[in-house]
Amino acid sequence: MEFMKISDRLQEWLENVRSFLQQEIYPLEQQPNRFDDIESLLNEKRRKARERGLWTPHLSPAWGGPGFSLMEFAHISELLGRTPFGHYVLNCQAPDIGNMEILIKHGTPEQHQRFLRPLINGDIRSCFAMTEPEHAGSNPVMMGTIAVREGDEYVINGHKWFASSADGAAFAIVMAVTHPDAENPYQRASMIIVPTDTPGFHLVRNIPVMGHAGRGYFSHGEIRFENCRVPRENLLGSEGAGFAMAQERLGPGRIHHCMRWIGICERAFEMMCDYAARRELAPGKPLASRQTVQNWVAECRAEIDAARMLVLRTAQKIDHEGDYAARMDISLIKFYVANVLQTVLDRAIQVHGGLGMTDDTLLAFWFRHERAARIYDGPDEVHKTRVAKMILRQYGAKI
Amino acid sequence: MEFMKISDRLQEWLENVRSFLQQEIYPLEQQPNRFDDIESLLNEKRRKARERGLWTPHLSPAWGGPGFSLMEFAHISELLGRTPFGHYVLNCQAPDIGNMEILIKHGTPEQHQRFLRPLINGDIRSCFAMTEPEHAGSNPVMMGTIAVREGDEYVINGHKWFASSADGAAFAIVMAVTHPDAENPYQRASMIIVPTDTPGFHLVRNIPVMGHAGRGYFSHGEIRFENCRVPRENLLGSEGAGFAMAQERLGPGRIHHCMRWIGICERAFEMMCDYAARRELAPGKPLASRQTVQNWVAECRAEIDAARMLVLRTAQKIDHEGDYAARMDISLIKFYVANVLQTVLDRAIQVHGGLGMTDDTLLAFWFRHERAARIYDGPDEVHKTRVAKMILRQYGAKI
Amino acid sequence: MEFMKISDRLQEWLENVRSFLQQEIYPLEQQPNRFDDIESLLNEKRRKARERGLWTPHLSPAWGGPGFSLMEFAHISELLGRTPFGHYVLNCQAPDIGNMEILIKHGTPEQHQRFLRPLINGDIRSCFAMTEPEHAGSNPVMMGTIAVREGDEYVINGHKWFASSADGAAFAIVMAVTHPDAENPYQRASMIIVPTDTPGFHLVRNIPVMGHAGRGYFSHGEIRFENCRVPRENLLGSEGAGFAMAQERLGPGRIHHCMRWIGICERAFEMMCDYAARRELAPGKPLASRQTVQNWVAECRAEIDAARMLVLRTAQKIDHEGDYAARMDISLIKFYVANVLQTVLDRAIQVHGGLGMTDDTLLAFWFRHERAARIYDGPDEVHKTRVAKMILRQYGAKI
Amino acid sequence: MEFMKISDRLQEWLENVRSFLQQEIYPLEQQPNRFDDIESLLNEKRRKARERGLWTPHLSPAWGGPGFSLMEFAHISELLGRTPFGHYVLNCQAPDIGNMEILIKHGTPEQHQRFLRPLINGDIRSCFAMTEPEHAGSNPVMMGTIAVREGDEYVINGHKWFASSADGAAFAIVMAVTHPDAENPYQRASMIIVPTDTPGFHLVRNIPVMGHAGRGYFSHGEIRFENCRVPRENLLGSEGAGFAMAQERLGPGRIHHCMRWIGICERAFEMMCDYAARRELAPGKPLASRQTVQNWVAECRAEIDAARMLVLRTAQKIDHEGDYAARMDISLIKFYVANVLQTVLDRAIQVHGGLGMTDDTLLAFWFRHERAARIYDGPDEVHKTRVAKMILRQYGAKI
Repeated sequence: MEFMKISDRLQEWLENVRSFLQQEIYPLEQQPNRFDDIESLLNEKRRKARERGLWTPHLSPAWGGPGFSLMEFAHISELLGRTPFGHYVLNCQAPDIGNMEILIKHGTPEQHQRFLRPLINGDIRSCFAMTEPEHAGSNPVMMGTIAVREGDEYVINGHKWFASSADGAAFAIVMAVTHPDAENPYQRASMIIVPTDTPGFHLVRNIPVMGHAGRGYFSHGEIRFENCRVPRENLLGSEGAGFAMAQERLGPGRIHHCMRWIGICERAFEMMCDYAARRELAPGKPLASRQTVQNWVAECRAEIDAARMLVLRTAQKIDHEGDYAARMDISLIKFYVANVLQTVLDRAIQVHGGLGMTDDTLLAFWFRHERAARIYDGPDEVHKTRVAKMILRQYGAKI
Repeated sequence: MEFMKISDRLQEWLENVRSFLQQEIYPLEQQPNRFDDIESLLNEKRRKARERGLWTPHLSPAWGGPGFSLMEFAHISELLGRTPFGHYVLNCQAPDIGNMEILIKHGTPEQHQRFLRPLINGDIRSCFAMTEPEHAGSNPVMMGTIAVREGDEYVINGHKWFASSADGAAFAIVMAVTHPDAENPYQRASMIIVPTDTPGFHLVRNIPVMGHAGRGYFSHGEIRFENCRVPRENLLGSEGAGFAMAQERLGPGRIHHCMRWIGICERAFEMMCDYAARRELAPGKPLASRQTVQNWVAECRAEIDAARMLVLRTAQKIDHEGDYAARMDISLIKFYVANVLQTVLDRAIQVHGGLGMTDDTLLAFWFRHERAARIYDGPDEVHKTRVAKMILRQYGAKI
Repeated sequence: MEFMKISDRLQEWLENVRSFLQQEIYPLEQQPNRFDDIESLLNEKRRKARERGLWTPHLSPAWGGPGFSLMEFAHISELLGRTPFGHYVLNCQAPDIGNMEILIKHGTPEQHQRFLRPLINGDIRSCFAMTEPEHAGSNPVMMGTIAVREGDEYVINGHKWFASSADGAAFAIVMAVTHPDAENPYQRASMIIVPTDTPGFHLVRNIPVMGHAGRGYFSHGEIRFENCRVPRENLLGSEGAGFAMAQERLGPGRIHHCMRWIGICERAFEMMCDYAARRELAPGKPLASRQTVQNWVAECRAEIDAARMLVLRTAQKIDHEGDYAARMDISLIKFYVANVLQTVLDRAIQVHGGLGMTDDTLLAFWFRHERAARIYDGPDEVHKTRVAKMILRQYGAKI
Repeated sequence: MEFMKISDRLQEWLENVRSFLQQEIYPLEQQPNRFDDIESLLNEKRRKARERGLWTPHLSPAWGGPGFSLMEFAHISELLGRTPFGHYVLNCQAPDIGNMEILIKHGTPEQHQRFLRPLINGDIRSCFAMTEPEHAGSNPVMMGTIAVREGDEYVINGHKWFASSADGAAFAIVMAVTHPDAENPYQRASMIIVPTDTPGFHLVRNIPVMGHAGRGYFSHGEIRFENCRVPRENLLGSEGAGFAMAQERLGPGRIHHCMRWIGICERAFEMMCDYAARRELAPGKPLASRQTVQNWVAECRAEIDAARMLVLRTAQKIDHEGDYAARMDISLIKFYVANVLQTVLDRAIQVHGGLGMTDDTLLAFWFRHERAARIYDGPDEVHKTRVAKMILRQYGAKI
């Protein structure tokens, strides 16, 4: 009976990733607020990573990956999360990672050839268009984007936002209502692949988020579909299966996010401890001597460790029993880890004082952008309700 | 790589314990505030437990126990913690469990014969006298109880309190300063075995704690030593080793407490869910339909699961690497789990409303008595500081 | 424009109360867990208080009181709250204070003569029977106690609990459904005065609450009404007006509780500061030197001050504009102050360490009994919802 | 005895401000992240404000202001805080407001003529250079900027940052050590006026803060002084009085900030309520129907009201008894209100979901920039310690 024993192969990978980040990526972090300009530089780093065998660590050998379990990949994801560029450089970044997974599972051979292969190769990027500004995402009845079948085509009309990385993406996977009258509201929508150069696909803007609209990979798109026509064969999976596939996509996706957040937590924790140890309040009296700082260090250590174990346990459950069996655990880690992340970042900033507000460290970047962790992929409240209902129904609650 | 796989033998034990509690112990819980009268009844249950092979689950076969690892015993301890009587009935209750462990490790054959064997047999009880009302326990310099060697005897003078279960105990293990001038303040004290019928041993009172002075096993003694003489051979271990042995004692002791607390958490959680599912705010609208209750259920689930994994991880570390290697983890779980416990109990009471204030459930008993979890064996603040200092020194902090 | 300027007359009263508590009441606090035995002693103190002109400070001169505004009485109530016996000794204790107010406002001259006068004189005590064990109090539809008119009598059947101080009370004011078919569910119940020696009035038990069933004034009764007959003239106010009158009763009642809680907060705060200043961790290094303790002291100071101002503002609003206008404020202080109270007590205990768990200080008594503050007179959740709905409806929310 | 009665004159002013903001300023808020470009536009609005008699509301008639008390000005400051441009447009923005106050009190007639008059007229802006990147601000011993007297000049060398609005300022008030050997470390520094075109005054950069370096008024400067020479008559007040004057400056300054924060709280609260009332989770079921949202609304209402009263009470105390008498209250509101602000903003964003992350509302701007509220002018921890020490010393603590 043992916790988290790591295989030799994974251990080697982790060492390799660690030294790669150290040598190639951390030095890029100096200007975190200029991510606009950094994509071409990162693409060079991608080549280097690939040369070192560090590429698509989430994929099976059949698709050119190392074939790790989700729990093993989770360890890699934590390491990559230590820097805002980690996942991108190994081509396992959201939303492409989710799109790859769904294409592998549900794509046709033609879709694999046209969309998946270039994605795996890193030749193109993609986005995922589900959230709508006018409707609460948690309720499938409320979706306003419609895809109507006309002959061999779907004609799509609708309004999406928070389509991350839409700017520069080659295609979008779009969630649209194809069967508005289906009795089960969860069977109304389908997923359709829409190349971004299709007439009627309009990237309205990169949404200004926490002060920056961003550019390219580092952006969040608002999209309008206006009589946007794609051939029927761009349907992904079967009609009406959109929500089911979205759920499937979200399970591992949440593990990815959670482990990335834990990577951020560890990095912020190190920065906090390092600064507290070095910064002097008075000669010979470091910030680390203050009990309040000590309380934060101890509490953060406990919370980060707890968070990691909850996530790894869930990853293992997905590995062994599948997404559905682990759906409660997935919701549970989503809200738990997002809150630990926010707490750790807040304390790390407080320890840094004025410096923590500046972009001279990464803390301010994470503080503003990872506020979204408690919102996207289902806000805290939705996940808590989901967990609680599953539990309370076991006690006979009619809810 | 797997979490918490449980051996078949342990699984069997757990089943056995579970059904024993169900049949024999839960029915006794009706009058939790009358623990005074219950000891003789519990002693009968002890006999039944022993007949079922449920006895001293913490001991090795050499001492008549099953020989579980600490991590395995932790699982049993969680189950026993579900009721205030669990540990007592299997003879693995504090403070006797700690006294057994220390006697096994440091006792002489004569001490084993006279004190340990009857303790393991359940024929006598014991107590541990360390805390002093006049001095903060965290500072060894501050201890006021003195044992002076005169010929073949120690003459003990001093004042102790929170000697749990002193009332009716056959002997006390007493921490007293024997070497006031030792350079290292941690080497000033020794442990001495004092039979409670020794002249000069005065049980001043059972301290009224949260409304009750209690009686017998369920009490906390205040003790005065007035020229209390015991023979030299009652020294436990070597002179000056008192604090080292106390530390040793506290490592596993904190695992025991933490797992007991998790047992309480699980029981309180079940009571909360069950009541929320049944109690109606309006016809057909159970308390469980309220989002606030749902939030608590989800948060408690996350926190209890996290707490358990932190404790099991620590137990495993002690098993594999020893107390000293795990001392940071031990401090970390001490404060983390104690706070989860308090939160869970508070929410369970709030869900029960007025009923939660009454002694018609166990919640009110735990609420008042387990408030001490954040205080005894080192308050939260001491453990947080200890964890933080170990971490911050790794970053070079001069603290 | 000024905060809390206090009139000379009030100032004098406050001084008088302060010195009375100092001389007569604080010395009684040594055995807080033996409130059972204390009532006769307190009755002597009542006489002394009355001789000093300290009696029914909530009443108008017409009823023998000083005629203070609610805001003025609030200041007195805070002072009295500093000890568990304060309100009782000045005859302004719950539930009698609420019963006096309601009798003054709605009682007939005969009811005044028979029930109110002796209450004001302190010759008898009373109780209030509204809460039912089987039904959530927040929903008027759910009330199970029925009073049926038969001739000139009401025949009452039902089950109540948390009728505080029922043990030894001369009469109860009982809330019972008289008009089960009233369209407006808030007009179904009436208040009826039931002398406790009426056949069919059964005090089932003093409910064991947090370890003690209590006795006399310090108790909470469970009552069964079995064909309990009282004459029609025992109706209080008009039929169907029960809920309206209960609401009216609760407005000032919540001010009373809140100010009493602030008195407890101040006393606990003083104890915390005093102990932290005196208790040494090491020679010359008091507990007060620890930053965690300092954080608590500062936060408690802010929270208690904030709480007091919110309550006084609400009291003033009731004085000037009436209960109804202030109903949002009343709900707001109910949950806000109850939570400050719990936080302050928790910290005060933590600072006291083991001593805080004992009955050697009052903290443990308040910790366990004032946990109810977040539950009775509407739990936190009900008050928060009430406040929020009033606010959100102003923004057009259809809730 | 009454809370917050507002004079007719103040009432008129508040109405005037309210309608001015409505008509002229709120419409400017659409692009909060482009504050760089807005200064010229705001300068037009300044002229309009002045025409309406809305100018320097903090000043006495002698200096062209309305002559309000601090408590009265606090009400105006709250209103202005509702928009990021409010204080600037009425020429009562930090750091100029503090500089005006200090110049009025300690400036010579020549300094009044040259620096103060144009500041009051809004013809120039100023900055305040105290904080240093290399030294913790809380410790006066640690200041590294030195001003040496050479003949009739001071020669200043040092490194400052967070000199807000340095970009475009006409002069800086600089804190520098003039008496390094003064026995009392609080008497080592002086304040010196340094025109920004003085040789040796280098604005190194506008510090990138939370993603933006800003420009002009909306910026935070890093400054190096390299043999920067100013005439002796630029000394402000007397030599060695720097810290005393800084303290004096901070008293009212913290009231200004706190009331501005309460203005932000109120605006964010309105946005939260409004959005919750309008946004539908399902047809006919607004976000406002969720109990979690209701809890936040109720808690925010209580906390904002409490915060305001604490600040107004403190303002009144400064008005009546002076800064020194109110210094504990000033520290108390500094940490209390900053934390309420952060909580309110966090909840308002959470209610807005994805929209809250965007710059389509002001919430994201405040969330990132007002994180500094818990840091500047003394971090939470420093103020809590200060409050606690004052209190604990009253109990005899030797700390």
